[in-house]
Amino acid sequence: MMRDRVRVLLADVAAGRRTVDDALAQLDAAPVEDLSFAQIDHHRALRQGYPEVVFGEGKSPEQALQICARLAVHGDGFLVTRADAAMRDAIAAAYPAAETDALARTALMRRADAPPPAETGALVVTAGTGDLPVAQECIMALRAFGHGARRVADVGVAGIHRVLAQQETLRAARVIIVVAGMDGALPSVVGGMVRVPVIAVPTSVGYGASFNGLAALLTMLNSCAAGVVVCNIDNGFGAAVAAARILDREA
Amino acid sequence: MMRDRVRVLLADVAAGRRTVDDALAQLDAAPVEDLSFAQIDHHRALRQGYPEVVFGEGKSPEQALQICARLAVHGDGFLVTRADAAMRDAIAAAYPAAETDALARTALMRRADAPPPAETGALVVTAGTGDLPVAQECIMALRAFGHGARRVADVGVAGIHRVLAQQETLRAARVIIVVAGMDGALPSVVGGMVRVPVIAVPTSVGYGASFNGLAALLTMLNSCAAGVVVCNIDNGFGAAVAAARILDREA
Amino acid sequence: MMRDRVRVLLADVAAGRRTVDDALAQLDAAPVEDLSFAQIDHHRALRQGYPEVVFGEGKSPEQALQICARLAVHGDGFLVTRADAAMRDAIAAAYPAAETDALARTALMRRADAPPPAETGALVVTAGTGDLPVAQECIMALRAFGHGARRVADVGVAGIHRVLAQQETLRAARVIIVVAGMDGALPSVVGGMVRVPVIAVPTSVGYGASFNGLAALLTMLNSCAAGVVVCNIDNGFGAAVAAARILDREA
Amino acid sequence: MMRDRVRVLLADVAAGRRTVDDALAQLDAAPVEDLSFAQIDHHRALRQGYPEVVFGEGKSPEQALQICARLAVHGDGFLVTRADAAMRDAIAAAYPAAETDALARTALMRRADAPPPAETGALVVTAGTGDLPVAQECIMALRAFGHGARRVADVGVAGIHRVLAQQETLRAARVIIVVAGMDGALPSVVGGMVRVPVIAVPTSVGYGASFNGLAALLTMLNSCAAGVVVCNIDNGFGAAVAAARILDREA
Amino acid sequence: MMRDRVRVLLADVAAGRRTVDDALAQLDAAPVEDLSFAQIDHHRALRQGYPEVVFGEGKSPEQALQICARLAVHGDGFLVTRADAAMRDAIAAAYPAAETDALARTALMRRADAPPPAETGALVVTAGTGDLPVAQECIMALRAFGHGARRVADVGVAGIHRVLAQQETLRAARVIIVVAGMDGALPSVVGGMVRVPVIAVPTSVGYGASFNGLAALLTMLNSCAAGVVVCNIDNGFGAAVAAARILDREA
Amino acid sequence: MMRDRVRVLLADVAAGRRTVDDALAQLDAAPVEDLSFAQIDHHRALRQGYPEVVFGEGKSPEQALQICARLAVHGDGFLVTRADAAMRDAIAAAYPAAETDALARTALMRRADAPPPAETGALVVTAGTGDLPVAQECIMALRAFGHGARRVADVGVAGIHRVLAQQETLRAARVIIVVAGMDGALPSVVGGMVRVPVIAVPTSVGYGASFNGLAALLTMLNSCAAGVVVCNIDNGFGAAVAAARILDREA
Amino acid sequence: MMRDRVRVLLADVAAGRRTVDDALAQLDAAPVEDLSFAQIDHHRALRQGYPEVVFGEGKSPEQALQICARLAVHGDGFLVTRADAAMRDAIAAAYPAAETDALARTALMRRADAPPPAETGALVVTAGTGDLPVAQECIMALRAFGHGARRVADVGVAGIHRVLAQQETLRAARVIIVVAGMDGALPSVVGGMVRVPVIAVPTSVGYGASFNGLAALLTMLNSCAAGVVVCNIDNGFGAAVAAARILDREA
Amino acid sequence: MMRDRVRVLLADVAAGRRTVDDALAQLDAAPVEDLSFAQIDHHRALRQGYPEVVFGEGKSPEQALQICARLAVHGDGFLVTRADAAMRDAIAAAYPAAETDALARTALMRRADAPPPAETGALVVTAGTGDLPVAQECIMALRAFGHGARRVADVGVAGIHRVLAQQETLRAARVIIVVAGMDGALPSVVGGMVRVPVIAVPTSVGYGASFNGLAALLTMLNSCAAGVVVCNIDNGFGAAVAAARILDREA
Repeated sequence: MMRDRVRVLLADVAAGRRTVDDALAQLDAAPVEDLSFAQIDHHRALRQGYPEVVFGEGKSPEQALQICARLAVHGDGFLVTRADAAMRDAIAAAYPAAETDALARTALMRRADAPPPAETGALVVTAGTGDLPVAQECIMALRAFGHGARRVADVGVAGIHRVLAQQETLRAARVIIVVAGMDGALPSVVGGMVRVPVIAVPTSVGYGASFNGLAALLTMLNSCAAGVVVCNIDNGFGAAVAAARILDREA
Repeated sequence: MMRDRVRVLLADVAAGRRTVDDALAQLDAAPVEDLSFAQIDHHRALRQGYPEVVFGEGKSPEQALQICARLAVHGDGFLVTRADAAMRDAIAAAYPAAETDALARTALMRRADAPPPAETGALVVTAGTGDLPVAQECIMALRAFGHGARRVADVGVAGIHRVLAQQETLRAARVIIVVAGMDGALPSVVGGMVRVPVIAVPTSVGYGASFNGLAALLTMLNSCAAGVVVCNIDNGFGAAVAAARILDREA
Repeated sequence: MMRDRVRVLLADVAAGRRTVDDALAQLDAAPVEDLSFAQIDHHRALRQGYPEVVFGEGKSPEQALQICARLAVHGDGFLVTRADAAMRDAIAAAYPAAETDALARTALMRRADAPPPAETGALVVTAGTGDLPVAQECIMALRAFGHGARRVADVGVAGIHRVLAQQETLRAARVIIVVAGMDGALPSVVGGMVRVPVIAVPTSVGYGASFNGLAALLTMLNSCAAGVVVCNIDNGFGAAVAAARILDREA
Repeated sequence: MMRDRVRVLLADVAAGRRTVDDALAQLDAAPVEDLSFAQIDHHRALRQGYPEVVFGEGKSPEQALQICARLAVHGDGFLVTRADAAMRDAIAAAYPAAETDALARTALMRRADAPPPAETGALVVTAGTGDLPVAQECIMALRAFGHGARRVADVGVAGIHRVLAQQETLRAARVIIVVAGMDGALPSVVGGMVRVPVIAVPTSVGYGASFNGLAALLTMLNSCAAGVVVCNIDNGFGAAVAAARILDREA
Repeated sequence: MMRDRVRVLLADVAAGRRTVDDALAQLDAAPVEDLSFAQIDHHRALRQGYPEVVFGEGKSPEQALQICARLAVHGDGFLVTRADAAMRDAIAAAYPAAETDALARTALMRRADAPPPAETGALVVTAGTGDLPVAQECIMALRAFGHGARRVADVGVAGIHRVLAQQETLRAARVIIVVAGMDGALPSVVGGMVRVPVIAVPTSVGYGASFNGLAALLTMLNSCAAGVVVCNIDNGFGAAVAAARILDREA
Repeated sequence: MMRDRVRVLLADVAAGRRTVDDALAQLDAAPVEDLSFAQIDHHRALRQGYPEVVFGEGKSPEQALQICARLAVHGDGFLVTRADAAMRDAIAAAYPAAETDALARTALMRRADAPPPAETGALVVTAGTGDLPVAQECIMALRAFGHGARRVADVGVAGIHRVLAQQETLRAARVIIVVAGMDGALPSVVGGMVRVPVIAVPTSVGYGASFNGLAALLTMLNSCAAGVVVCNIDNGFGAAVAAARILDREA
Repeated sequence: MMRDRVRVLLADVAAGRRTVDDALAQLDAAPVEDLSFAQIDHHRALRQGYPEVVFGEGKSPEQALQICARLAVHGDGFLVTRADAAMRDAIAAAYPAAETDALARTALMRRADAPPPAETGALVVTAGTGDLPVAQECIMALRAFGHGARRVADVGVAGIHRVLAQQETLRAARVIIVVAGMDGALPSVVGGMVRVPVIAVPTSVGYGASFNGLAALLTMLNSCAAGVVVCNIDNGFGAAVAAARILDREA
Repeated sequence: MMRDRVRVLLADVAAGRRTVDDALAQLDAAPVEDLSFAQIDHHRALRQGYPEVVFGEGKSPEQALQICARLAVHGDGFLVTRADAAMRDAIAAAYPAAETDALARTALMRRADAPPPAETGALVVTAGTGDLPVAQECIMALRAFGHGARRVADVGVAGIHRVLAQQETLRAARVIIVVAGMDGALPSVVGGMVRVPVIAVPTSVGYGASFNGLAALLTMLNSCAAGVVVCNIDNGFGAAVAAARILDREA
């Protein structure tokens, strides 16, 4: 598409409809707005299919709000992740239509004209109760991208009948996100049960030799179920983007 | 499907067409053949969609051949990965129809009745020349699964114009596998240029603080391009399975 | 028992049957034979229940033979682990009655009067073919300690039905040793299926982010199946000793 | 046992006492209660011999209470570990019969009809004062599983006479749990003194190059006393389960 | 220069203008002032070209002030880095002419007679908003050393057009400092676009497998753009010194 | 000496001055007092030359006081390290003669009859201001063991003239303790300047890739000055004991 | 410059001197030659100032020769690094004018019309004899880039007088590269002695806790001499590029 | 002493016995001989008390011989460590009086007029047979420095009676070097048994989670026996230097 824009530009120049300097300026103009502390990429929706997402950690509520304001002006919705209570409250106050989620630590403002999330068959599976915040971040992000998600919780491999009981649900999914801390073994079992894409998200749940999720991360990277792919520790958002890239392909 | 088999079994028992002990035996019988040192899973093709794959490393040529023989008997093809020259030669001698690939270190025997690989739009991109063996393993595995793949080589980010020049090709792909060692930065750039699924494979190419691929692995897990998912170091095969899971969904 | 020996010594001294200096010498005398490069502990059989075991790695065949000779003189059998082909050949030549095992890399000389290994219910389970050498070292060591063992091979979690099919065998065991490399996930599943002690042995099977067994080790230490205990990487021998300590308790 | 249930089901179906659909439903029904954020496994007592244990860390007092309530309804007792003061207070208020332990950070509710803990010969040994909380968690968990335990504290190897003085006690135990931080050397000495199973628990006691227990963990995994098995850092609970699995075998 | 001083000393001694003991004392006298908890190096400005810099972390506001006082007495300005709000406030109260910067966490007191910072062409580039504090510390330190700096923010590689749009600015710089957390990939791209020195500063921005900046650090050390040099994690100050060493060479 | 006690015991038994049972009891009696959470080793002063030292971290002020009380009853002094303000205050209140030191975080109670610390020539050298707490812990511990110490502060290698100016002082010392964080390079320089024993103590001073002292620790272990020996990170106390072991030898 | 080319293109199109399609093709044409296994970047000399450099490790002599041939055709010289004896011999045979260096493991072909290397004041300093290969690779690369270099060898800090004796030489340099293994302490001392840029290169020289250069790398990253910048372990080539970037600036 | 030389120089200049330029030259002249690839420090014997030691690893036999030749010319003896068989043979051929030791991998040439090694009371203790090479390197280095050493081998803590039986020998030593791999626990026990200095040397003996000696290293750094100091992994030579520094102090 960008190439198409260049072609049009060139044709305009050839036809004398546009001067050389003007074309040059067009080529230089990046679709990026500079807030001095952040560059907002208004074209990302075109290029990537999703609006800009704000990573809340390390930002003040004021900074987050400032970015949200710019995004809202352009008519895009926004998603803020890793938003603590203060940030969520600030956003909720400024944007009453925004959905905030304490478990996921997110604030989501969908575009006014956004269609309801599709029943697209993403399934988020967790090994234990402690993995739920990461799973919920994933679900809220999928929602921001227009995809619904079903959740199956607490089916870790130490009680293998729990995940076996979900065989039908697993097989019905179009893409599966498995969220697990501690030994991180669940994706290996799930990966062996289904043919669909399996995205594994290690969590920092655990203690001692879990080394804040490193153990689960290594387990998943070494999964004996071929084709399991892995995200960063606690990165529910990233898993959602990966799943959306897959689901969008099929639409 | 397994559930369907259980339903049929139960119906047979109810109808007196099958005794309780016989049904019990059926339920116990795993579709697995025991070679004493390995259990061959003949039902995997049904369950996962692909034939058994033999991981050659640490096996003798004889052990590999023995497994191949059992798989061939069942009419399934086979793929042997991490096969050194001796193993590839042994397989080529026993199965003249098998394709061996020195760069990929693979031996592939496709089923006699297998259709030619589809032009399915997998794209394998490498950052440097040293990453080619991993990329080739990926391509041969995709071929085993019935998918063709196109390769774009040596477009590392230190010469950013090289990957930018491939923008059209990248956008045309249905799934992209990015193979990179050293700094492992290429998936972040590719991930930001396209909307399709991006699978990153770190390689052990590098020295010193690359720590045999650890640096590239960490880079990819922390990719600032959301939705990039990661495989184990040098795991071209795993990336192929993940890509096939995605491509198969769309068929 | 040692205390009993002290009591006897003291009584002898009190009764004038033994001089003070002689008693002092007795207390000093350690039941250890000094080969200058090794101290052989002839009382270990009394104290620990097993004969001295020789760790072959890093020793020359000559050193191993020299230790074996001293052990044989005392009528004890011996077990040599991590014995390469040269060492095994040297031992086989010197002790025709010794059993050597290439897969396990062991040489075992049982005492002439040793009873046949008991059918004691140790079960050694492996996730993949590559884990067999470690499993076999474990089985040979159990044999040295007078315990038989049954083996179930290649039942990794990626094909979960394989281990489920072994449920009866698992439940019948009195102690289970689970040997697994790569993701090391099998002990978590087995640990959740049985009530008996489960000893996990990570192996160095794998590549890349397996970091020579570190990934499997961490997985097992973080097992979500409570009560799984862990040995060093590739330490089949250690697992055998742990199992023997448990089985001996019950005799 | 599960297999027995299947056999009964099948027999019922064969005899027309149960319809196919009803049998299918029974086979599907997992003995698991879904609290949405957790799945309670009411059959674990049957399968594993112990009631569900609640890991308190990362849960709110309310979540813990909610799970306890479901467990109590079924007549099972419960054990909550890693319970901070607020959680212990909440449980003590709701269940006056529960025993809370500040050192162990546990809350234990034994079944009304539970027999007093057996004098089963578990011995918990600590190297230093700082290791006591982990040892106490272990003792409380053993108690939850119906086993008494004796404690020997502060017998680290730097004053080797302290552990030597306990030789009689060590030899009288049926299973020994050794809890140690810093250099983690105590299990090697204890392991060489006794014939019974020795379970080592590294603790995060120490500073600097102890790396939060990593040093002690590695020491124990490399113990020169063969047969020492290892739990996760600070995992007193896991050691208790392992010990109970051994002790239960002998009953 | 020091050698010149020795030559003068020797000449004085030879000429009888200075006694042996006096010369010896001169040679011993280090140009260092001892505050008992710190040694202030008043000659550093001569030797290194910059005044002493105070690392605020781990010091009390009082300690920082005491050092500043000694430096001010000698007419040197000072720079305090890693100064928290309390320390900055204390310095601002004592030295109204000092510039404090909350983002950079610095307090800078330039010498009264210091010329305005030169327009020397240092360019500080950041990948994301979270990298700004490190970039600002760098800019304030450059200012302390008499160099101005231009900042380009938030041009991470996931939106590669952002950094491409800055090509002119990058090429105009005399030295470039690239500050990036997470995947740390930006220096590889920048390093390939320009011929001038590129100094990479990894930041601790990120989570999970970023391991507090380790991932970005390793990426940069393995940069496929040759000649990229690296500073410690979050070390904006060090990058400024390195840049100043380069810029000063050219004056 | 212990052997002498045994000889006397045996002689007493031989002479009928002591019964067998009584001698046995004597041999069993460990000179250890059990506080239930700690075992106090009153014979350590005899065996090791120093009184028991209490490691304050992780203990409550009450626990520390309880141990101090038992030590004081026996006439021994005590040293408490890693004592926070609350613990130091509690000890100062209970033992007005105790010396507390906020920088060192110690409380020292010397025996009433202890001679003044000797001028024994221990020299404690620090690289930077941040290393002072560790150095001071070392000095206070040396004092507890009867040795004086001189301190040379802030002579890190980046201003190499600072340590060169101390050459006379370094050469006059009988043992040198070098305390350094960050790059930990000072012991290599000092070790090459002197012939006396050099004990290196890495500190956790630094940030980023110092990894809490790991960098300095590794530097010191790899010192190119042969014979430098190393203590744990921040372990000023351990260095003092090592120095005292050396100094005591020479008395 | 690229922008200039675009301006010319646009002007040509505007003037009708060039068609739209032709201009588009020009914009697409990357100055990169595709050897299928490598993309040769003939414009790098323009963009970066140096010819393409071939990293020999992992390439066959044939592959290296093939790349050299393409580079030679374009009149550029080439530098091959990490070239083993076989590769160096192959290059020497094909290009008699090439300089091969066994210590540096390089093969250098300068352009026929290249001026002799300038006396530009780069100084390469090594701590020990084992660091020489890395230093020599650095020197040969500097030579490839047109810069001479002086070497000062074996002046590690354990004999601090050795580096002090080089003070004049150090101060005369325009940029200093310090190569050191083991403790990696030399850059901290050198960095404190001079005002010019100091580039530190850790080497894998050492054993045990040097962890193949990790210790030296961490030391250098934590250098207490501000402004020291660091390259990858054993990366003499990278240091040369960094130095050349600095030296070229000043020409 | 160096200062004395300066004083003499100055006095000579003052008295006109020496010109300024000559004195300056003397001050510049480092007592170092430059072999281009190594700088030989002939004054080290004066400064440090020992002749130069050649680290053989990574050097060719020719390089080692060349250094030995220069040292021999000056009448100093030499010690070559980490000398493989080829290097030892070359040295033995050139210097028939040199003692070579295959276990220690050393070649020692004592000065013709060197007195026989003193019976100075160094004791080298090893945990296992595999630790002997490191112990022997230590003994040969002590011999080079004029100190005899006694060896106690194979007294690891898993058979605690073995080290207890050596109590008299341990107490008689003036300094103890404890060499141990695997769990590295022996120094903690020895450190608690004696009052003399204890130097711990971890070895790379072990496998799996020993991580080439890292486990033993960490154990020793965290020793619960206060005052144990630690050398690099496998660094028997360094331990000898440290011991010699202590023993020399007492002469």
